[in-house]
Amino acid sequence: MNNKRNIYIDNIDVDVAKKEYFDKLNIKAQWEEIDVVNSLGRVTFEAVYARLSSPNYNAAAMDGILVESAKTIGATEINPKTLEEGKDFLYINTGNPVVDPYDAVIMIEDVIQLGDGKVQILKAAHPWQHIRPIGEDIVATEMILPSKHKIRPIDIGALISGGIEKVRVYKKPKVGILPTGSEIIEEIKELETGKIIDSNSRVFEALTVEAGGLPKRYSPIEDDYEKIKEAVLKGVEENDILLIGAGSSAGSKDYTANVIEELGEVIIHGVALKPGKPTILGIINGKPVMGIPGYPVSAYLVFETFVTPIILKYIGLKEEKDTFVDAIISKKITSTLKSRELIRVNLGYVKDKLIATPLSSGAGVTMSLVKADGIAIIPQSLEGVDAGGSVKVKLLKPLNRIKETLVSIGSHDMIMDILGDMVKLSSGHVGSMGGILAMKRGECHIAPIHLLDLETGEYNISYVERYFPGQKMALIKGVKRHQGFIVEKGNPKGIKDFSDLVREDVVYVNRQRGAGTRILLDYHLNKENIDPANIRGYDREMTTHMAVATAVKTGSASVGLGIYSAAKALDLDFIDIAYEDYDFLLPYELLEDERVKEFIRTLKSQEFKERVEALGGYGFENIGEIIIVK
Amino acid sequence: MNNKRNIYIDNIDVDVAKKEYFDKLNIKAQWEEIDVVNSLGRVTFEAVYARLSSPNYNAAAMDGILVESAKTIGATEINPKTLEEGKDFLYINTGNPVVDPYDAVIMIEDVIQLGDGKVQILKAAHPWQHIRPIGEDIVATEMILPSKHKIRPIDIGALISGGIEKVRVYKKPKVGILPTGSEIIEEIKELETGKIIDSNSRVFEALTVEAGGLPKRYSPIEDDYEKIKEAVLKGVEENDILLIGAGSSAGSKDYTANVIEELGEVIIHGVALKPGKPTILGIINGKPVMGIPGYPVSAYLVFETFVTPIILKYIGLKEEKDTFVDAIISKKITSTLKSRELIRVNLGYVKDKLIATPLSSGAGVTMSLVKADGIAIIPQSLEGVDAGGSVKVKLLKPLNRIKETLVSIGSHDMIMDILGDMVKLSSGHVGSMGGILAMKRGECHIAPIHLLDLETGEYNISYVERYFPGQKMALIKGVKRHQGFIVEKGNPKGIKDFSDLVREDVVYVNRQRGAGTRILLDYHLNKENIDPANIRGYDREMTTHMAVATAVKTGSASVGLGIYSAAKALDLDFIDIAYEDYDFLLPYELLEDERVKEFIRTLKSQEFKERVEALGGYGFENIGEIIIVK
Repeated sequence: MNNKRNIYIDNIDVDVAKKEYFDKLNIKAQWEEIDVVNSLGRVTFEAVYARLSSPNYNAAAMDGILVESAKTIGATEINPKTLEEGKDFLYINTGNPVVDPYDAVIMIEDVIQLGDGKVQILKAAHPWQHIRPIGEDIVATEMILPSKHKIRPIDIGALISGGIEKVRVYKKPKVGILPTGSEIIEEIKELETGKIIDSNSRVFEALTVEAGGLPKRYSPIEDDYEKIKEAVLKGVEENDILLIGAGSSAGSKDYTANVIEELGEVIIHGVALKPGKPTILGIINGKPVMGIPGYPVSAYLVFETFVTPIILKYIGLKEEKDTFVDAIISKKITSTLKSRELIRVNLGYVKDKLIATPLSSGAGVTMSLVKADGIAIIPQSLEGVDAGGSVKVKLLKPLNRIKETLVSIGSHDMIMDILGDMVKLSSGHVGSMGGILAMKRGECHIAPIHLLDLETGEYNISYVERYFPGQKMALIKGVKRHQGFIVEKGNPKGIKDFSDLVREDVVYVNRQRGAGTRILLDYHLNKENIDPANIRGYDREMTTHMAVATAVKTGSASVGLGIYSAAKALDLDFIDIAYEDYDFLLPYELLEDERVKEFIRTLKSQEFKERVEALGGYGFENIGEIIIVK
Repeated sequence: MNNKRNIYIDNIDVDVAKKEYFDKLNIKAQWEEIDVVNSLGRVTFEAVYARLSSPNYNAAAMDGILVESAKTIGATEINPKTLEEGKDFLYINTGNPVVDPYDAVIMIEDVIQLGDGKVQILKAAHPWQHIRPIGEDIVATEMILPSKHKIRPIDIGALISGGIEKVRVYKKPKVGILPTGSEIIEEIKELETGKIIDSNSRVFEALTVEAGGLPKRYSPIEDDYEKIKEAVLKGVEENDILLIGAGSSAGSKDYTANVIEELGEVIIHGVALKPGKPTILGIINGKPVMGIPGYPVSAYLVFETFVTPIILKYIGLKEEKDTFVDAIISKKITSTLKSRELIRVNLGYVKDKLIATPLSSGAGVTMSLVKADGIAIIPQSLEGVDAGGSVKVKLLKPLNRIKETLVSIGSHDMIMDILGDMVKLSSGHVGSMGGILAMKRGECHIAPIHLLDLETGEYNISYVERYFPGQKMALIKGVKRHQGFIVEKGNPKGIKDFSDLVREDVVYVNRQRGAGTRILLDYHLNKENIDPANIRGYDREMTTHMAVATAVKTGSASVGLGIYSAAKALDLDFIDIAYEDYDFLLPYELLEDERVKEFIRTLKSQEFKERVEALGGYGFENIGEIIIVK
C-alpha cells in the first residue's frame, strides 16, 4: 500500500465549488422520441402542440333529443311544440355526434313523450345548447405541455386526446458507478475481517434512478493505479457521468485524484463540507468524473450535493428548492468555521415548537441517515449553535407525518424499536438523565427512564420529584427488565459479582454518563467500596445495550452491564443483578394527547407483549398504568 | 342502444361512501420476497433486523500506527516513547482491521519517524482510540427498518450493510383497467367522427403505477351486456382490483352497474362528488370492482378519491394527507348543497396573498387539470364561495414553484403559451376587461389587454386611466397583432365587411363579454349602425381565438372575429380589420420584481420574436417598452 499520502489542499466553499465546476462542464442535453404511453415521469424536451382537437366532433353533452334550434323557436309551456322523430329530431346519447342539420340538444327530462315517434317540448333551444363543440378540451395546434415539463398521469391523457403518440423527452444520462478499494466486496457471502460490502454503489444506483438517470454499476476495482486507470477510461467511454467510489481505506482515495489528473483535469479536490470533505470534482473527455468519499454518510450527502444537480441538468430540470424548515436545536452543536456541516436530526413538534435533535454525527453511521427526519445545515460562517438556537433543516419526511409523531428521548431499550414499529415514534437514546433534561427543556413528549434512587433503592419517582418540583408529571409504567452482567458464552472468566470487575484479566465495557445502567453500576461500586480507577475499560463508553453486548461478543471486553435481551440477542451469558422499572415520564396534561393514548393502548396490547416476550428478560406487571407525580 | 336510463338514486357523501365501501372490502395484503438491490420504493411487510454487524470487524478510523495502549502509558512531550515496527506497532490505513494484541490507533500526524522502523510518540493512547468498533453503524439483530416503510436509497445501503440480501415487501396489487363503450377506440389512427380515443385507461395505468400497483389494461369492450359481463368476469379473475371505465355515452354506464349487480354486489351507486357523481363501488368475488365515469376530469378525480386509497391499503401505506393550503378565491364559485365540488384552480402569490383562480369547470376539459396548480375543495355544506373568500386547496405543484410564478389574468393570445414555455407564468384567460377587474382586485401581477377606446380609437391607456384613478400603473408594450374576420378557406361566403354579418346565410361565432375582441366588434357594429339582434350566432360565445377558429374550421360558424395567427394555425382565410396593441398592464412598483424583469427580457429576446413570427400576423414595434400611466 502507498504510504505517500495526499493532503487535501483545497477546502473550497460548497457553492463556489459547484459554480466553478458546473461552469466548466459543458453539458449538452440530448433528446429521444418515446411512446406517450411510456412517458410517465420523463421530461419534455420541447413544447408539445396538439395535432388533433378533442373532442374531434361536435358531441351531445347530455342524453336527449337532437333538434334544429330554429325549428324550436316559439315553444312555451302555453304553446308547446310537437316534433316528429326522424324529421324534426333524433334521439341522442351523451357523447354521440351531432349530425346535420341539427344544432342543439334538449335534455330527455325536458321532453314529453307523446308516442308514435312524437314528442312535445315546452321551451325553445338555443343554438349549440348541450353540445360539446369540437376542441372544447383541446384545439389542434394548441400547446398541451411546455418544454422541461415532467410528465404526469393526466398529461399522458391530454397528449393522447390531442392526437400525440410520440413525444420528445430528455435522454436520461448514463451514470457509471465505479467502486474502488481492495477491501470492497460485492457479495455478502464473501464478507470477512478486513472486507466491506459495497453498499455505497447500491445507494448510488437508487439515487441515480430517483434523480432521473440510468445507473451502470461496475464491480469493485482493487487499489492498483493501472487497474483503476483502465476502469476509469472504460467508465468514461460507456457513460455520460462517472462516479468513482473510494473505499474507506486511504489508498484508493489517492489513486482517484491522480488518475483523473492523468486522464483529464481535477477541478476541485476537497470541499468545505462535513461530512464530505475529500470530494473530487474532475472532467475527463468533457464528461463529469467525480470521486466520492467512502464513508456511507459522506457518500450519500456528496451525491445529493453534487451529483443530483448534474443529473438534473441532463434531463432539463432545475434543482428543486428543497423544503426547508426552521427548527429549534435541542443540543448544542459545535461546528467549525472550516466547513458547512450537515447534521442528521430527528424532528418533533412539542408544544407547537419544531424541535431538532441531532443524531450521531459519525460519517460511518448509515443508520443516522435512515433514522433522520431531516438534515440541519450549519453554515460555514457559524462556529456552532447553542441548545435552543434556530437551525435550517432540510426535510427528509413530510411535515405532516412529523406532526403525528410522538417524540421520545431518554434511555435505550430494545422495546423502543418494537414500539417504533407499532406507533409513530421518534426515539432518541441519550440515557435516562439525558431524557430528564430533554423533558425539562421541552424537547420531547415522553422520556423513557430507569433511575435507581441510590438511597431508597426505588426507581424513577424520586428523580421526577427532584427535577420537576411543583410540576404535575405522570409516569406510564413500562416494562420490568433484568439487568446484569453480559459475559461471554459459558462465562469463561467466571464472573460472579462486582468485585470481579477489578481483576487483572477482566476488561469491562461501560455505558455513558447519565445512563441508568451506569448509575446502577456506580451505585453498586459505591456500596461495595470499589474504586472505578481499578476497573480496566471503565472509561470506554457505549450508548446502547447492544453496543455493550457486541463488545463482549467480539472479545474487545469480557463483561459489561446490560439488559438480558441484549445478551440473548447475541447468544451471550447473563448474570442477573437487578429487576428494574423502565417507565415513561411525561407532563400530566399530555395524557390527553391522542398520540400518547395510542402509545398506552399499544403498551397494553397482546401483540406488544408477545413481541417483547420473544426478546426475553422482561416483565409486564402494571404495564400501561399511570402514576401521577407532583 | 338502451333507452331505459338509470337515475342515480344515490347521492352519498364521499366520506360516508368511502367508509361504507372500505369496511365491506376485506383486503388481505400479501407479501413477496425480493432482492434488496431491487427494492427501491417498495414497502416493507415486516420489520427488518440486521443479520450482520457493520462494520463487521474493529477497524482503524484514521491512517496511522496500531499500538497496544498499555505500552504507550507515560509518553509525554518531555518523555517521548520510542516504538518499534512489528513489535510495538504496525502501520495501518483507515478501514483496515485492528489485530491482536493491538487496541489503539495513533494518527500518523502525531507520529515522529525516526527511521530504521522506529517511531516516537509524545502522548499515550487511550484504549480503542481512533478505532471504529464492530457494530458502530449497525449491530446484528438491531431493527434496521420498521414494517410499512417505503424503501429509500439510503435504506438499501443500510440493509446491505446489515447483511440483508432479500426483503419481504407488500405485493403490488394487480389493477385491471377495462374500458367500455362502443365509441371508445385504442389507436389514434382509428379516430373518426363519433369515436373517442381511450385516454382514460392510459391515465389510470400511470396513476396505478404512481400509487404502487401493477396495471393491466384491456381493449375497449363495446356496449353489449354479455360482452361486458364476460370481460368483467375475466378481469376479476386476473386482477386484485378491477376498474370499469365508462365511455362518455350513457349506455355503457348502465351496463356496468347491472353487470356488477348480477355478478356481485353494488355497494354505492352515485356519490356526492362533482365532477364524479356516477361512480359505482362494487364487490365481485370479494374483490373491489369500480365503475369510473367517462369524462376525463371525473375519471381522474374519482381515481384519486377512491382507487388510490385502495391500492395503498394493498401495499401497507396509509393515505398521505395531501398538502392543503388556504387560498383566496378570485371569482365567485357557485356550488350546490348536493355535492362536494372539486374546482381546478391556478394559484399565485400576489402581494403575499395566495390567490386561487378557477379554471374551466367542465368535466370534459382535461386541460383544466393539466394547467391546474391545485384543486379547491368546496364542501357539500356550502352553496358557494364569494370572490375574496377563503378556500382549501389541494396542491398539485410545490408551493415553492408557485411562489416563483408570474400570474397573468386577462386577454387570450397564442403568444401567452410561448411566454409560458419561456418563463414561469400562470395565465388565465378572461378577456381584457376581466384582466382589468382581476388587477383591481389584486389577483394578478400582470394583465394582458387590448382595449380600443371607442371615442379616440386608441388602445389601452384611457382604460387604465379610467379604472385606476390616482394609482401609478405601467403598461409593458407587447405585440402588435392583426385582428380580422376568420373565414373558411377560399372565403366561400364572400365576406368582406361587417354588413355581411347580418346576411341570412352567414352564421357568426362570438367572443365572451369583456373580451377586447368583442369590444372591437361592438365598436364597429355601433359605428355602422348594425343591430346585433340581426346577427345569427351573436349569442354563441367562445373564450379563446382558437375556439372561434375551430368553430369556423368545423363548419359550425361561417365567420368570427379573431387574430391572424389563429386563422393561420387552422389553415383558414383572414380578412384584416385592425392592427391592435396587445400590452401588459401592471402596478408601477412591480417593475422592480425579478419575475417581471425576466418577463420583459424574454419579450425582447430574439428567441421570443422568432417563435412569434412563426405564428404570423404579429408586429414587434416598441416591444418591452414601458409606459407609465397615472
